[in-house]
Amino acid sequence: MAWYQGAFFYQIFPDRFFRAGPPAPPAPTGPLEPWEAPPTLRGFKGGTLFGVAEKLPYLLELGVEAIYLNPVFASTANHRYHTVDYFQVDPLLGGNGALRHLLEVAHAHGVRVILDGVFNHTGRGFFAFQHLLENGPESPYRDWYYVKGFPLNAYGSSPNYEAWWGNPELPKLKVETPEVRAYLLKVAEHWIRFGADGWRLDVPNEIQDLEFWREFRRRVKGANPEAYIVGEIWEEADLWLRGDLFDATMNYPLGRAILGFVGGEALDRELAARSGLGRIEPLQALAFSHRLEDLFRRYPWEAVTAQMNLLTSHDTPRLLTLLRGEVARAKLALSLLFLLPGNPTVYYGEEIGMEGGHDPENRGGMVWDEARWKGEIREAIRRMAALRKAHPLLKSAPYTRIYAQDGHLAFARGPYLVVVNATDRPFLQDLPLHGHFP
Amino acid sequence: MAWYQGAFFYQIFPDRFFRAGPPAPPAPTGPLEPWEAPPTLRGFKGGTLFGVAEKLPYLLELGVEAIYLNPVFASTANHRYHTVDYFQVDPLLGGNGALRHLLEVAHAHGVRVILDGVFNHTGRGFFAFQHLLENGPESPYRDWYYVKGFPLNAYGSSPNYEAWWGNPELPKLKVETPEVRAYLLKVAEHWIRFGADGWRLDVPNEIQDLEFWREFRRRVKGANPEAYIVGEIWEEADLWLRGDLFDATMNYPLGRAILGFVGGEALDRELAARSGLGRIEPLQALAFSHRLEDLFRRYPWEAVTAQMNLLTSHDTPRLLTLLRGEVARAKLALSLLFLLPGNPTVYYGEEIGMEGGHDPENRGGMVWDEARWKGEIREAIRRMAALRKAHPLLKSAPYTRIYAQDGHLAFARGPYLVVVNATDRPFLQDLPLHGHFP
Repeated sequence: MAWYQGAFFYQIFPDRFFRAGPPAPPAPTGPLEPWEAPPTLRGFKGGTLFGVAEKLPYLLELGVEAIYLNPVFASTANHRYHTVDYFQVDPLLGGNGALRHLLEVAHAHGVRVILDGVFNHTGRGFFAFQHLLENGPESPYRDWYYVKGFPLNAYGSSPNYEAWWGNPELPKLKVETPEVRAYLLKVAEHWIRFGADGWRLDVPNEIQDLEFWREFRRRVKGANPEAYIVGEIWEEADLWLRGDLFDATMNYPLGRAILGFVGGEALDRELAARSGLGRIEPLQALAFSHRLEDLFRRYPWEAVTAQMNLLTSHDTPRLLTLLRGEVARAKLALSLLFLLPGNPTVYYGEEIGMEGGHDPENRGGMVWDEARWKGEIREAIRRMAALRKAHPLLKSAPYTRIYAQDGHLAFARGPYLVVVNATDRPFLQDLPLHGHFP
Repeated sequence: MAWYQGAFFYQIFPDRFFRAGPPAPPAPTGPLEPWEAPPTLRGFKGGTLFGVAEKLPYLLELGVEAIYLNPVFASTANHRYHTVDYFQVDPLLGGNGALRHLLEVAHAHGVRVILDGVFNHTGRGFFAFQHLLENGPESPYRDWYYVKGFPLNAYGSSPNYEAWWGNPELPKLKVETPEVRAYLLKVAEHWIRFGADGWRLDVPNEIQDLEFWREFRRRVKGANPEAYIVGEIWEEADLWLRGDLFDATMNYPLGRAILGFVGGEALDRELAARSGLGRIEPLQALAFSHRLEDLFRRYPWEAVTAQMNLLTSHDTPRLLTLLRGEVARAKLALSLLFLLPGNPTVYYGEEIGMEGGHDPENRGGMVWDEARWKGEIREAIRRMAALRKAHPLLKSAPYTRIYAQDGHLAFARGPYLVVVNATDRPFLQDLPLHGHFP
């Protein structure tokens, strides 16, 4: 199996994890937002990639096998989805040297690192856009974007160019232009050769050009056949997972199903509905299992076992907030991630019970004061990760429903039996195991 | 003597000299302005540094010993004084690889290359400025500029930050901020270590901080003791040429004197007055010589012999236009540059008699069709450069006035006698050479 089938991923929002090491030029002068202060839409807390490297022991102790980094390239936004330079790691993060350092330290411990690729649009500060903004029709960068008129109206409310969701901050790249295509493919290949272990792709379905993504795959796999390509597709992704495009998608459908089953009455459905998670229907065990079975059947098994299974991310409220503070349900939901096929993926801070609603609340500075941790969540993850490592069949074995009724589910993963009680009452049941285990 | 004492400099405006080789990413898609079309304020003709390298044989034939390149770093302007990234050569010029190539080719032929350093201000596309523009007071780049209020008003007519001559396109850097200072000094050192042979400094007197420039000199000379530092100081520059700051300045005062003496009735004084050349007074030989003697006396001799002596540049009308097409006067004015102490510096195209008034007319695409050249100007330069090479004392010997009356001047440069007739009539005169020559 490839390394990315079944690996425990930990998602890090670089500005908010840990601060260490020097910035790269041009260096910020501060002041930064205080680490513990409520995060803001525009503020910077100054986390760095040197900081991530310094906290590798923490991740190793948790059992993390791979890191998914939110964007790291130079950007004017704290989330760095507004790319300014695809060949430069943000100076605030420590620059290219910091990524080099992180990759070396992580690889030395067998931990992989994948990057976030934002190829549908750039920030306004990207060179080609600035060129157009300053020079208008006389700029030879005209075909980099979908420009509808000059001068560009980039700082008003209705941009005269195509932009992501009409947001003037995010002009949409014209990927059909050969120079643009060549640029993005060069970026894709460059960072894999630099040492990154794969790409998480931001809104790839907005680039409605499958041939671009096929070529993307060829270039990335050509640079490293073991590189992992995972697309941010929030819904079912049949088209993307046939083997010629992505290895996996961000498996929000699975996460929603878990929340629907485990969340019970605790789940804050209103909060979820106002995020990309959408309307989460309560699921009893049988409906939940049917949902899982559908997800495990609809894609090739190589894809199922490579899916990025997640409950929450930087784009959703935090788990404990969704579950209105019910630690036991958080533990159960997270544990399930480790017992199903695919890559259990944990957003930084969920393991210690950080809380927060919508952006920016869900992007707080990581809490390093253990006294403030919900230690039992972390302990549950640590144990599940260790279990999974000790029993690698949990990464590859098929899912077989054994029993599913009300809030109770039992399933087999090869030789292992998993029994889940999603209620808050004890559960006693004879299970029909005959024929399932040798 | 240092290589930069007496060297023949050729100034190149990179967008307009010659086009060759591939652009760097992000690559332009075109279209470019036609090479032969009248240049415009915002248009790009697509000259590259690969192109300069390809035309090195042309420069060698002319006798050029050093190249002064107008800015080459990534910029949204065709003149590239609006810097976007000080560590990247503009992709349109071919990127860092193209500068590397040019330096290798030039150095292989003993030709030096100096860069244009724009450290007083940046373009609006510079990372720190974009950061402030997008994030306002929450950006940790606040102290990179002199900000008077948020949000930044960068695209209106009255910027709320200090800018060069109030031009919102050119926000003034806050050099007193340690991080800004460190950045600029790092840039200065970086490109010298990269292989550049020196810096021409744009508007250095706008950075009113001599200690910055002292440290600049220490860093540059530390990286290469032979590096040349020449400041764009349009007037007398006593303060700058005492040995602790610059090796030289752009010697517009000398150029103005030559134009005043040689230009005669032909000189278009109105045209000159509307440029940085200002009001050029007609000078008879004696007044001209007094002006020269003052310039040669007021600075240490090491500075006098290192001065960048020029008649015209990208900031002035072209020579032949100033002289209303009088080729003989252009030849004489240029020849004088080669017969006086300092570095004769020729703006590209003057040697073939290109014409043009104010910006953008003075920045036309270099004419490569020999049929359109004023060949005799080029021939005069070629011969004067060869003469100077054959007689190196012309670089070091002092200037001694022998005879100066009306339009006639005779002076000695060590063992050599130079006689100048700036009138359009023949000149017969017994010269009082006694005691001047052994």
